[in-house]
Amino acid sequence: MAPDSKSSNDLLIHNSLRSISYKRGSLQLLDQRKLPLETVNAIRDMVVRGVPAIAIAAAFSLAVEVANFKDFNGTSEEAASFIELKLEYLVSSRPTAVNLSDAAKKLIEITSNVASTSTMPESVFQAYIEAAEIMLDDDVASNKAIGSYGSRFLRDQQKIVPRFSVLTHCNTGSLATAGYGTALGVIRALHAEGVLERAYCTETRPFNQGSRLTAFELVHDKIPATLIADSAAAALMKESRVSAVIVGADRVAANGDTANKIGTYSLALCAMHHHIPFYVAAPLTSIDLYLSSGEEIVIEERSAKELLHSQGGLGEQVAASGILVWNPAFDVTPAYLITGIITEKGVITKNNDAFNIKDFVEKAAGKSTA
Amino acid sequence: MAPDSKSSNDLLIHNSLRSISYKRGSLQLLDQRKLPLETVNAIRDMVVRGVPAIAIAAAFSLAVEVANFKDFNGTSEEAASFIELKLEYLVSSRPTAVNLSDAAKKLIEITSNVASTSTMPESVFQAYIEAAEIMLDDDVASNKAIGSYGSRFLRDQQKIVPRFSVLTHCNTGSLATAGYGTALGVIRALHAEGVLERAYCTETRPFNQGSRLTAFELVHDKIPATLIADSAAAALMKESRVSAVIVGADRVAANGDTANKIGTYSLALCAMHHHIPFYVAAPLTSIDLYLSSGEEIVIEERSAKELLHSQGGLGEQVAASGILVWNPAFDVTPAYLITGIITEKGVITKNNDAFNIKDFVEKAAGKSTA
Repeated sequence: MAPDSKSSNDLLIHNSLRSISYKRGSLQLLDQRKLPLETVNAIRDMVVRGVPAIAIAAAFSLAVEVANFKDFNGTSEEAASFIELKLEYLVSSRPTAVNLSDAAKKLIEITSNVASTSTMPESVFQAYIEAAEIMLDDDVASNKAIGSYGSRFLRDQQKIVPRFSVLTHCNTGSLATAGYGTALGVIRALHAEGVLERAYCTETRPFNQGSRLTAFELVHDKIPATLIADSAAAALMKESRVSAVIVGADRVAANGDTANKIGTYSLALCAMHHHIPFYVAAPLTSIDLYLSSGEEIVIEERSAKELLHSQGGLGEQVAASGILVWNPAFDVTPAYLITGIITEKGVITKNNDAFNIKDFVEKAAGKSTA
Repeated sequence: MAPDSKSSNDLLIHNSLRSISYKRGSLQLLDQRKLPLETVNAIRDMVVRGVPAIAIAAAFSLAVEVANFKDFNGTSEEAASFIELKLEYLVSSRPTAVNLSDAAKKLIEITSNVASTSTMPESVFQAYIEAAEIMLDDDVASNKAIGSYGSRFLRDQQKIVPRFSVLTHCNTGSLATAGYGTALGVIRALHAEGVLERAYCTETRPFNQGSRLTAFELVHDKIPATLIADSAAAALMKESRVSAVIVGADRVAANGDTANKIGTYSLALCAMHHHIPFYVAAPLTSIDLYLSSGEEIVIEERSAKELLHSQGGLGEQVAASGILVWNPAFDVTPAYLITGIITEKGVITKNNDAFNIKDFVEKAAGKSTA
């Protein structure tokens, strides 16, 4: 794919909700903490969430910086070193974001290759900008592939059912990725193909990513959608109103155990009890083959304020003073509760009750280089 | 038990958190919507929740009215008719509150008995006031019996475990009953006996009865306690931090199916998966033997505002505009997920995987009249 600023511009026009608005030389990031109350005014510096979006935002902040260089006093090697240092600094700000360090490695490799063949620092910067732009396009393309594979898979699985109602958790849409979304990408694809009956989104306490962001995207896209309290999911399933649960992933271990937003494990348990298929939708970059299982994932605890005050800790007090709080950021859903993992290279399913993720990843890598 | 205003006064002094503060001739009800931010200033007319508390509040509002009568121009029969009409009007305001109509029936019976033997309307009113005061005392005594039976039962069941950590949902304490509480009564009893490791309370979205009211009571009573998001319960159970789940009940059907605050069913499913015992704590008045199962219970839906705005609909907007909402007030937990039902007459357990509640209720009625 030939990179040019127009392609990114097209994406910007295509989707007004994207978390990252980039034109060569300028970058705007949507301050998602302000949603849904402010849309237009909420574009601020570096206030972005969602693991893929963090990687894209970091890469682009540097792309803007180098695009605006008036004159760089140095060699092409020094230009490549400058980019390497900057990227390492960005990676150090979010050491757990696998996608960010993977992206940085690729960008460093590209720029040092250019530096070794050209003496012009401008060529290095230009190569970096183009590579970052390709990354943005690739991220959206990857999301669309997840949506497309997921939608096709669901339709193949349930040929008798003409339409699906999908429950999702947290936000995995345009506001968490460069655009389109992972789990929400599958919902978008089902809707685009006319087979979505209804999307259900949870509030996703305590930070309300569901009621603020997912609900916002669903309304924006005119997708038939209903918001529920996290605790109402089991009752919804009992009423046979959910054909599938689809969630995103922070990290997927080699055996398929999946770390995702707190509440995912509870949804998976309830889905199993009601014989509802439970899918994880995530790009291959979320899979960490070095983690043998979810047992190795340390649960990050977040501030008590998120439960004690409204707006994820920023608003008024809503809980009793003096109460202790346990506020884990995510939980781990064991692979035995997961029906399939929807990636941009296809859906990983089980063989003899187990995922062979390593095999799938290796085959997918073989395919893409073939 | 001899009724006198002192006994109610004692209760008032004993527990500053009670939802209903009564002295003969005056009634104050705590406006729980203002908790936890206002305590002292929050005493307002008729703003009370919790099914037992509603019955008590209704009975007492009439007790205050008749105590303040300067002169009643009528016979004792007319006094009894006045009370009957007033009680029927109060019952019509909350037709689904079984406890309220049961209480009204008893009070009507007492006053018409007095009217048939005395010509003084004052005697009828006095009898009503005394009967209402006994009701208040009995409600607290019933809660304490629930606490005591529950605590003893848990200790008998788990002799090896020296201390318990109990997860509860919604508010079932002094703020939902006349005092002490049902599920929270068991937690209070375990704490009083020195065997409570920790109480965990859920937020209980969307009305936050857990984070506002239960957390408030637990902090007030200096009970070691931790607040969690509803969706974090499964992760807490997975970490083996919960020895038992104890919840209240809106209504218990003849087979043990239990309607309770939305989210109870999800907790019961998660508890079963983690082999954690799940108890319902409720007075016998919550049992409706005319309901053969939970299938017959119609789920009330509440306002979308509770999810779209903070403070249960009263506060600022917290969700995306235009999103539809499904907001069921409660869900039904099937009997097969319930380990036992803790009542003021003992704990109902299963025989061959089924509760024989009718049998238990009949035996308990036999006991109390023996």
